[in-house]
Amino acid sequence: MAIEGKDEGMRTAKIRLGMVGGGQGAFIGGVHRMAARLDDHFDLVAGALSSTAEKSLASGRELGLDPARCYGSFEEMAEKEAARPDGIEAVSIVTPNHVHYPAAKAFLERGIHVICDKPLTSNLEDAKKLKEVADKSSALFILTHNYTGYPMVRHARELALNGELGEIRVVQMEYPQDWLAEPIEQTGQKQAAWRTDPKQSGAGGSTGDIGTHAYNLGCFVSGLELDELAADVHTFVSGRKLDDNAHVMLRFKGGAKGMLWCSQVATGHENGLKLRVYGSRGGIEWTQADPNYLWFTRLGEPKQLITRAGAGAGAAAARVTRIPSGHPEGYLEAFATIYTEAAAAITAARSGTAVDPAVVYPTIDDGVRGVAFVEACIASSKQNGAWVRV
Amino acid sequence: MAIEGKDEGMRTAKIRLGMVGGGQGAFIGGVHRMAARLDDHFDLVAGALSSTAEKSLASGRELGLDPARCYGSFEEMAEKEAARPDGIEAVSIVTPNHVHYPAAKAFLERGIHVICDKPLTSNLEDAKKLKEVADKSSALFILTHNYTGYPMVRHARELALNGELGEIRVVQMEYPQDWLAEPIEQTGQKQAAWRTDPKQSGAGGSTGDIGTHAYNLGCFVSGLELDELAADVHTFVSGRKLDDNAHVMLRFKGGAKGMLWCSQVATGHENGLKLRVYGSRGGIEWTQADPNYLWFTRLGEPKQLITRAGAGAGAAAARVTRIPSGHPEGYLEAFATIYTEAAAAITAARSGTAVDPAVVYPTIDDGVRGVAFVEACIASSKQNGAWVRV
Amino acid sequence: MAIEGKDEGMRTAKIRLGMVGGGQGAFIGGVHRMAARLDDHFDLVAGALSSTAEKSLASGRELGLDPARCYGSFEEMAEKEAARPDGIEAVSIVTPNHVHYPAAKAFLERGIHVICDKPLTSNLEDAKKLKEVADKSSALFILTHNYTGYPMVRHARELALNGELGEIRVVQMEYPQDWLAEPIEQTGQKQAAWRTDPKQSGAGGSTGDIGTHAYNLGCFVSGLELDELAADVHTFVSGRKLDDNAHVMLRFKGGAKGMLWCSQVATGHENGLKLRVYGSRGGIEWTQADPNYLWFTRLGEPKQLITRAGAGAGAAAARVTRIPSGHPEGYLEAFATIYTEAAAAITAARSGTAVDPAVVYPTIDDGVRGVAFVEACIASSKQNGAWVRV
Amino acid sequence: MAIEGKDEGMRTAKIRLGMVGGGQGAFIGGVHRMAARLDDHFDLVAGALSSTAEKSLASGRELGLDPARCYGSFEEMAEKEAARPDGIEAVSIVTPNHVHYPAAKAFLERGIHVICDKPLTSNLEDAKKLKEVADKSSALFILTHNYTGYPMVRHARELALNGELGEIRVVQMEYPQDWLAEPIEQTGQKQAAWRTDPKQSGAGGSTGDIGTHAYNLGCFVSGLELDELAADVHTFVSGRKLDDNAHVMLRFKGGAKGMLWCSQVATGHENGLKLRVYGSRGGIEWTQADPNYLWFTRLGEPKQLITRAGAGAGAAAARVTRIPSGHPEGYLEAFATIYTEAAAAITAARSGTAVDPAVVYPTIDDGVRGVAFVEACIASSKQNGAWVRV
Repeated sequence: MAIEGKDEGMRTAKIRLGMVGGGQGAFIGGVHRMAARLDDHFDLVAGALSSTAEKSLASGRELGLDPARCYGSFEEMAEKEAARPDGIEAVSIVTPNHVHYPAAKAFLERGIHVICDKPLTSNLEDAKKLKEVADKSSALFILTHNYTGYPMVRHARELALNGELGEIRVVQMEYPQDWLAEPIEQTGQKQAAWRTDPKQSGAGGSTGDIGTHAYNLGCFVSGLELDELAADVHTFVSGRKLDDNAHVMLRFKGGAKGMLWCSQVATGHENGLKLRVYGSRGGIEWTQADPNYLWFTRLGEPKQLITRAGAGAGAAAARVTRIPSGHPEGYLEAFATIYTEAAAAITAARSGTAVDPAVVYPTIDDGVRGVAFVEACIASSKQNGAWVRV
Repeated sequence: MAIEGKDEGMRTAKIRLGMVGGGQGAFIGGVHRMAARLDDHFDLVAGALSSTAEKSLASGRELGLDPARCYGSFEEMAEKEAARPDGIEAVSIVTPNHVHYPAAKAFLERGIHVICDKPLTSNLEDAKKLKEVADKSSALFILTHNYTGYPMVRHARELALNGELGEIRVVQMEYPQDWLAEPIEQTGQKQAAWRTDPKQSGAGGSTGDIGTHAYNLGCFVSGLELDELAADVHTFVSGRKLDDNAHVMLRFKGGAKGMLWCSQVATGHENGLKLRVYGSRGGIEWTQADPNYLWFTRLGEPKQLITRAGAGAGAAAARVTRIPSGHPEGYLEAFATIYTEAAAAITAARSGTAVDPAVVYPTIDDGVRGVAFVEACIASSKQNGAWVRV
Repeated sequence: MAIEGKDEGMRTAKIRLGMVGGGQGAFIGGVHRMAARLDDHFDLVAGALSSTAEKSLASGRELGLDPARCYGSFEEMAEKEAARPDGIEAVSIVTPNHVHYPAAKAFLERGIHVICDKPLTSNLEDAKKLKEVADKSSALFILTHNYTGYPMVRHARELALNGELGEIRVVQMEYPQDWLAEPIEQTGQKQAAWRTDPKQSGAGGSTGDIGTHAYNLGCFVSGLELDELAADVHTFVSGRKLDDNAHVMLRFKGGAKGMLWCSQVATGHENGLKLRVYGSRGGIEWTQADPNYLWFTRLGEPKQLITRAGAGAGAAAARVTRIPSGHPEGYLEAFATIYTEAAAAITAARSGTAVDPAVVYPTIDDGVRGVAFVEACIASSKQNGAWVRV
Repeated sequence: MAIEGKDEGMRTAKIRLGMVGGGQGAFIGGVHRMAARLDDHFDLVAGALSSTAEKSLASGRELGLDPARCYGSFEEMAEKEAARPDGIEAVSIVTPNHVHYPAAKAFLERGIHVICDKPLTSNLEDAKKLKEVADKSSALFILTHNYTGYPMVRHARELALNGELGEIRVVQMEYPQDWLAEPIEQTGQKQAAWRTDPKQSGAGGSTGDIGTHAYNLGCFVSGLELDELAADVHTFVSGRKLDDNAHVMLRFKGGAKGMLWCSQVATGHENGLKLRVYGSRGGIEWTQADPNYLWFTRLGEPKQLITRAGAGAGAAAARVTRIPSGHPEGYLEAFATIYTEAAAAITAARSGTAVDPAVVYPTIDDGVRGVAFVEACIASSKQNGAWVRV
């Protein structure tokens, strides 16, 4: 994926990037780095990769960073990088959720663009405050709801927004996993530990970690806004502090209905994110594990299996496609697309030009909606499944 | 499928069968007849196939019935057949729902076994009264929740009941169709007309017609009993008198949770019945359109695709399997299994012997539960999704 | 499937059927009986079910046959049934291959229609002699290449014959199994024993048992005739007397090419019959294990998944379809379709009327071609894969 | 994928890389660049990207190369870079086939490591000469048979080499595409033009372009060596100069058999590379379009669907896996693995240490075998399918 608007074939200078979190032992930090690298729009030049200066330096050396730009805290990094003439232009925040707010705030207030992992924050109050900060800042805020980067997700959205599905009636979202079917957080698994810890994750377990992804995806593709929800949120594994399964009924503005199921105890599922949207004229189905395919049925016609870069895939998918059909792109490519969309926006911002209107990425508003979704699920469940407006 | 307990290799005499409904233009009547024929335990010898004597005779002649045993009403058939020395021993009731109660009653009261299509009746009051009749009768009552006849459904149930899934946590049921995505009942489609007519179907549209199937299947396989449900039942197609989509959250006795989605407006689905059951040790997934496969995952092991008659399929599946693995059995075979189970029970009843304990079929109690499910969905929805005990 | 041409709604009398072979312990006999029963056009009334009068009687009693019509040999049955006024009109021959010729001859010469399992005979000489007999007889000969009865196979053929695939270039056929991966014929498995015995099966093992099915299917669907083949036929399991794997390259008249692979040692396959046909304008793929689906791609358009009775399935499929889309039909239904096609032809022959031109079934000529295919494979392989004209 | 053997957590300096070919309008050059970038072991610093200095400079500027290191020919680049103290350590050759030999020779003779696209050369004579050059050179030669980089291919190979499949009997390879179903090379499609031009591609069309991939994959996974083959190579599209379809029968040393089918006219296929290997104890199936899955069946047990990074995937797969199971990796990741294996070998070579024995990549010998395969296919076909020893 090249960024549009190259000057006479001359390559745009790469964006200087820093990273908060993502040191040794982390998972998602490495994903962000590969994603940033794939399309070659970023140079990782600084990091506050771990919670101590020493660990941060060790992680930074492994990544080939200048030791002088390996910081012990995001505050230090924000301050010092903002002061450098060659300081970072953007930062990736890949920490547990509770750090998102203060870290993002520190960079946004210094005019440094923020690319932040989801959910936006660990509670709705922080989310709203962060939105205020972002709204005042000259810097951009990009939330890595990475599944929106898949070409066939873009195509599904194009179909929905172009009316090819007719009036949308039903949206079914699910994200089952099984990695928390046993209490592995009690035996030192680092990813499990923070994701089941309310202090680091916030009020939602499965709802926050994966429910927000499914919810974001459903809205992104359908173009619908949620009106209210009724949830039955539960923790199956004894001793776990956050939910590991949630059933949610949804009512969208305009009359569409839906269901969302997220689970971390659904034995047999790895990352089983699936979206189905049904309208009066057509229906679609997409599964993250097989992302290069989109099932599309026009009412009364045979089912079509549309493939990335294949016949029937439209402009929105083509824009974010790298290789020919039949050669699968995967999770890292979709994640890279978020980075490349961010690069397009940041590059436009650099030069004060308008960003290509085809550029799409999840925003701070999507982030606020995601945290509101989590809190509404918890609230509804506490009221024994009463409908809660979001 | 041979019936166990043959006397010295001598074939048991076939069961003399009558049919109520299933005349020209009907769908499910023909299915019942093929199902009754496949394993050769029944002889169709009488019918009240249509609502008038003339039509009934015309339909009967097509089927090769003795014109003298083609009746104009089920009442007449019940009376006259009961009086014949060679009268029918069992009757299949394949009419719209509202006829099930009076017809079944007429035969049960005369000691004639009843094989009845689902849902049991068009309302819970009738269902309970029919149960009283059945309980008093010497005759058997078999409800054709035909999906319980699939070998891999039997295997799934065996896994669940044997504890191979561990403690069951989540049961996900869905039955999406798209044949009612448009108001075809308003243009004379006979199947659509009665299925969307509250007078013939009862209070439930999609909930009664297909929701009951999904619900029955979930309970049959998991062995769980429903405690309460919260439903959002809706009609999307303008002018339709019954629901065509329902989202339901479920709480089972013992703590398992679940969701059920049934829809007749889910564009792209034909008869998309799917069941997934997740326990602390294993999970299964089964889809009606691909019924010879059962996905089974033991926690921490690779997914297995168990095939009918293949390695890993157990005794419960083998008992109801006719042909080698890799040669698919389908809907009619599963339906035939219900008939063959019925034949085993009826044959045992004939001779006053105990029925083989492996024989399983849906009973009047399942039928009452199904109608209660429908009415609970409607009641919950009317109370804006409040939890309703069933 | 009803037979066309019913007289004023009056049911045509059922065809009186006998059976040769198919006694206790056989596999395919039971399949033929279920197939004959499903659509209710036949009455099984006589049998020479086993090789001795005693066993034949025991098997016949299990099936409810009149003991007087349970014969000890096909010769006896042919003679006595031909002499009865209510004698059989048709006979199913379901023995090992080497009996097909003499048995079929005995009935054809008495004007009794023959429904015979494949391959036609155990050698080409017998096949040709049988064709002479059949050509002289007033009776019909139907070969049960049962896969031609699947609705989506019929649809694939309709697409090919109607030119929807353009000029056909490549035909890929395969039929892998794994049930003979070990020498189970040496440990008393009855099916394995005769199928690996040249005296009963003829010169071909996998080539005869399953290769003929794949070959027949490829020709049936594509409408092509084979010109020549080059084969590498092999026996992997030590001590086995017939081939258990064959690779064959094919050249069809008109310039299309193809490959056929049949194997009984392909670990992981049950009955993996698959057909793919590629033309200048379109391509199709069909798999026996999932028979209700046909993949169809028009060049330059998205892949379509056409379903039995679903949108896009044409008249040829609809003619042999019993139940709605999404409810799977299987192997027995396809087999039953061969019987129902046979019934249509026999019924027309009874009354001297022309058979509906839509009726299609494999004939004696297909049988001769199948045996010629087997012998050409063996001959080519003996000449180290030289091209052999068939 | 990190390279093993890091010195005290300090990052190994990146490898300075040049590229021959891959300028504007090329396809595979961009793939090589993304692959080289993903795991961050290479810095692209020089290029002879196009056939003229001007175009090469234009392409180089787009990639951000130093204009002084954008060369008009590979000869110039080899000479000048070899003379620089900071000259390239390795070069990627991504031109049409006929340039591989002279370009690779130029760099190998200067001690610069070569990463070269396949097939190795456009004829066997060049291939053998190049092998001589490589054997004499201190530099490494890596051939980008990229499909060997997929984790589940590695796992399949591990199963085969560890004897989990038993004695291998049958290897089925296929690589169907449909992009050349029409003569698009005659209408200016650049990729089609050179791939169907014998001057640039050599004697093989589909056999060279995709047949070599399938053949390499079959040998890589099974560990078998080909003994002889019999081929029917054909050109379906009128006016095309090279083959667009080939059927090949294979005999491996030790007695295994196989088939290979490659086609560029198989309507409905994009890049349908599929490998199946059957042994006396187990069988596997892998498809490039769905690369995160490996079907594995132990004889007599249920089929297993092993997933990348999931339960059942072993050390060989884990070594080349980047992200958790259920998040798909794709074509670029597999390609990147070839680069990362190359980096491991080059880094070891730099320091004169032994390379980790787990490092695997296709070599010059694989390349010679591939070209020999193509020429044997053509030779066999010219002799009407005679068996030809390779």
